[in-house]
Amino acid sequence: MSTIISTLKESGDENRVAITPDVAAKLIHSNFEVLVEKGAGQNAFFSDQAYTDAGAQVVSRDDAISKANVIAVINQPDKETLGKIKEGQILIGLLKALTDLDSIQQLAKQKVTALSFELLPRTISRAQSMDVLSSQASIAGYKAALVAADKFARYFPMMITAAGTAKPAKVLVLGTGVAGLQAIGTAKRLGAIVSGYDVRPASRGEVESLGAEFLTSSVSAVGEGGYARQLSADEQKQQQDELIGFIKQNDIVITTAQVPGKKPPLLVPQAAVDNAKPGSVFVDLAASDLGGNVAGSKPDQTVVTDSGAQLIGAGNLASEMATSASEMFSKNVQAVINDVADKDAKITIDLADDVMSQLVATDHGEIISDRVRKALNLPDKQPAKEEAAPADEKSAEKGD
Amino acid sequence: MSTIISTLKESGDENRVAITPDVAAKLIHSNFEVLVEKGAGQNAFFSDQAYTDAGAQVVSRDDAISKANVIAVINQPDKETLGKIKEGQILIGLLKALTDLDSIQQLAKQKVTALSFELLPRTISRAQSMDVLSSQASIAGYKAALVAADKFARYFPMMITAAGTAKPAKVLVLGTGVAGLQAIGTAKRLGAIVSGYDVRPASRGEVESLGAEFLTSSVSAVGEGGYARQLSADEQKQQQDELIGFIKQNDIVITTAQVPGKKPPLLVPQAAVDNAKPGSVFVDLAASDLGGNVAGSKPDQTVVTDSGAQLIGAGNLASEMATSASEMFSKNVQAVINDVADKDAKITIDLADDVMSQLVATDHGEIISDRVRKALNLPDKQPAKEEAAPADEKSAEKGD
Repeated sequence: MSTIISTLKESGDENRVAITPDVAAKLIHSNFEVLVEKGAGQNAFFSDQAYTDAGAQVVSRDDAISKANVIAVINQPDKETLGKIKEGQILIGLLKALTDLDSIQQLAKQKVTALSFELLPRTISRAQSMDVLSSQASIAGYKAALVAADKFARYFPMMITAAGTAKPAKVLVLGTGVAGLQAIGTAKRLGAIVSGYDVRPASRGEVESLGAEFLTSSVSAVGEGGYARQLSADEQKQQQDELIGFIKQNDIVITTAQVPGKKPPLLVPQAAVDNAKPGSVFVDLAASDLGGNVAGSKPDQTVVTDSGAQLIGAGNLASEMATSASEMFSKNVQAVINDVADKDAKITIDLADDVMSQLVATDHGEIISDRVRKALNLPDKQPAKEEAAPADEKSAEKGD
Repeated sequence: MSTIISTLKESGDENRVAITPDVAAKLIHSNFEVLVEKGAGQNAFFSDQAYTDAGAQVVSRDDAISKANVIAVINQPDKETLGKIKEGQILIGLLKALTDLDSIQQLAKQKVTALSFELLPRTISRAQSMDVLSSQASIAGYKAALVAADKFARYFPMMITAAGTAKPAKVLVLGTGVAGLQAIGTAKRLGAIVSGYDVRPASRGEVESLGAEFLTSSVSAVGEGGYARQLSADEQKQQQDELIGFIKQNDIVITTAQVPGKKPPLLVPQAAVDNAKPGSVFVDLAASDLGGNVAGSKPDQTVVTDSGAQLIGAGNLASEMATSASEMFSKNVQAVINDVADKDAKITIDLADDVMSQLVATDHGEIISDRVRKALNLPDKQPAKEEAAPADEKSAEKGD
């Protein structure tokens, strides 16, 4: 009997789907069966027909849940759906393993094997093809620059016309991780004058290679061993004053400082919003119910301030570019499946593996991830590296 | 007493303003007085304070109308406002001189001097700095590419990532005038594969210089003397079939065939819309109450078809990029004023001048423009070129 992989229709405003017809075809080629809930791809412009053409079966939600060995999702499903997932089934997606501990404990109780992309050890090179946070941040960064350009009431590029010359827009990107670099690249493509700000001086090279100016704080946040250190109140004040100065010189500010499950840092304080030029655009990729990077931004809304600045709360831009976002997400899911399957499509998850030991939140009734265990005040499950015997699955499974 | 130039707050969804603070400052420097209706620049992010700082006076609507020598507007004002404009006042803007003949006749009756930008002789090089149709089409073309990129659920550029490669979007621009070329340039900036279609083979050079592929019909529409000729029914059918073939190969289609005051030609028929790939985006710059270039498009709406194509009716994109659009429009207005004013800011309109003889719709109770006269079935006012005596203002004024 072949291993069955299924995907569900997401709920709410989510337009993405975790398995695209292309990836379905590839999985089927690798001897899996693929089930797709009816309408799962619709909001990402993948029709049921496209899945059928790829060799997948379009089924009811109940069938997609009950018949699958592996259920792939974008976001954590609702409580009712979670309740239907049974012992031995594998659930993979953005399961909020670090922020919705109740649901993770419930999945452990049901003996579901839950793989949560938030837990992926992103610095291990083998994990990069599985890195959903990175692929979706890339989409969000690109889209943030487009949204800014579309909302801005002036040209991004310099324009020389018969009626005169229009000066280019000035764009500042705060945070130069994956999303920030993509926003910088896209704003540059559109002809704006772009600068990127980061407290990590090491990102200078990447920013400058995109043709943008690199801005940083004169207060070094690098402490012992290269880790970020705690700044004093005075240092924080100095850093913020410098940043307010940078913001004031720009027409567009794109903020990208998201910390999964934590309140995002306030990078653009009220004073900077109040002093912004009329028509200024702030795109806040961290806007969430917990707050955002920009004072006064609201998730999924555009707030126009009294001074005529536009604050765009853009916490889930990947969903608004659902086709590309799903294609990338789906390839990330496929990379995980390829990693744990043999050529007969039989899946074995090695909990001693350096990637899987971290990606797996729950398995056989236990909490596996040490990051989740820490959040639950449980002792570490993994033996410390220096003590570890040559790892194989059994020894790891006995490790607690 | 100085000459007073005023501008009004536009009505409805119009965000632009005909005089910006910058141009107000320049006019004041040239010895004009400038009056601005309260709030006129607000939707284009020009505050009343900015006008005051520029040296203009912010006044009531009634004062802006009654005290002015020249009233500059974007669109034709409502009937009530038109009724208040008096003998000898100059009104300049997009006055619909060729399509709202009732209002033009009313202005003639009131002995208003009405300059309507639709009448500008665009091929005369001196007129190019006054060319509102061109400056606003440029904005609309740029914005059309942005709107398309923002609505499209995939990347425009090719993306090479850890999760795999995303192929670039394919964009087709129909009509390669000012708007079309600007749309092509912007879509190219964003990394799409772009082609431009026009029945005029002469536009090949401009399209190719932007790095796009030039597509045209195998049916030549060039007739005697270089003018467009009438095509036979068979030729029209062949041309349309070819075009449908081009459309089918693209993800995004931007249509730019606007004919002021006339029903726009249907370039994308229902069959082409029905056969479009799910997620395809059509941006119709001609969408209006008279119809559009794309079957089924509606002005100022996004229609999603059963097959998953998005039809964006985008007839007034310039208003959505109101700051740049107002800057350009305002410079066009300034060019007209500079053309008819002496160094003491005294205005004299020479109706024998090659530009003014066409731009002026009404003056001293008469219909001046021969294009408007023709629409009203009046005999030509201008003496035929070969018969014309050396032109001076007096002889022209006597010319009827």
